[in-house]
Amino acid sequence: MTVSDKQDFPVAQARRYLEPGPVVLLSCRHGGEHDIMTLGWHTILAFQPSLVGLMISGGNHSHRLIRDSGICGINVPSADMVDTVCRIGNTTGREIDKFDAFGLTATEAEHVDVPLIGECHACFECRLHDDTLVAGYDFFVFEIVKAHVATTPPVPEMLHYTGNGVFRLSRETLERRALFRPELLP
Amino acid sequence: MTVSDKQDFPVAQARRYLEPGPVVLLSCRHGGEHDIMTLGWHTILAFQPSLVGLMISGGNHSHRLIRDSGICGINVPSADMVDTVCRIGNTTGREIDKFDAFGLTATEAEHVDVPLIGECHACFECRLHDDTLVAGYDFFVFEIVKAHVATTPPVPEMLHYTGNGVFRLSRETLERRALFRPELLP
Repeated sequence: MTVSDKQDFPVAQARRYLEPGPVVLLSCRHGGEHDIMTLGWHTILAFQPSLVGLMISGGNHSHRLIRDSGICGINVPSADMVDTVCRIGNTTGREIDKFDAFGLTATEAEHVDVPLIGECHACFECRLHDDTLVAGYDFFVFEIVKAHVATTPPVPEMLHYTGNGVFRLSRETLERRALFRPELLP
Repeated sequence: MTVSDKQDFPVAQARRYLEPGPVVLLSCRHGGEHDIMTLGWHTILAFQPSLVGLMISGGNHSHRLIRDSGICGINVPSADMVDTVCRIGNTTGREIDKFDAFGLTATEAEHVDVPLIGECHACFECRLHDDTLVAGYDFFVFEIVKAHVATTPPVPEMLHYTGNGVFRLSRETLERRALFRPELLP
């Protein structure tokens, strides 16, 4: 089901969805081709500009499309998409169109020419910022230039991959604001 | 409480604990000083060698100790350590000795000269592998050279930080091996 109530979200706060470390879906388009891949190897690098590091293994069909276009979408699936996430990660865009095969809705980004995934809770439009470590580590530094996020819940239940076909679910919330220095709280 | 039943663990499988994206505690020692800091900005980069990328902000007292020594420990706390994790992240090693202040047990690493945190479920000894992106992004590539992991449970309940004093807990497990290609399963 497409999440239709997404709103603009401050790119400097993307950490709310990415810092917990969920599995994400990268979407891309280049030269008439598009693709989706799963990714668990990512980290926030800065708030402003909003930078994120992605290790996109060269074995993925998406790798070349993203390297050649310098753009991608980071889409955060909620936990109820687990079977689709597994199927995306166990097929290749060399053989199938993953939007069609898995019934996903391509929605257009505003600032970069990539399809975003309508069914995902949060979608981030990204532009390549630094490719210094691509040759050695397949590690890309992207800037998040636009964020679209569903209005509820504040953070969805997300999937965290441990390898070996096993995920952890981040369902419970633990609030500890009283232990934080005021300058670390918005 | 010190986790005393830790065993050697294959460094190539560190992803089991780090890929889910938990908050970790970095431990370090240099020139007669030691320190601990919290870190949520990390990613696995490779299995073999076992590489991990850490964004260690220059504002942390640990930053200089780790940069100058080229070594650190990555310690994975279980969710019941949440209050200690918050206190470590809201104090500075310039003013206090965090092992003493928070009653943590320093255990010696085998391959690098850093204290590990006995109370943590998993401890990884790390040596600097690539500092290309340190100047621009405070991003260090470390090799995990030795891993010590508690024998049970297979994966502890871990803390995932969303910012704003709020954590998610990864408590539930979801197994989907039937949807994976055999070559992706050990």
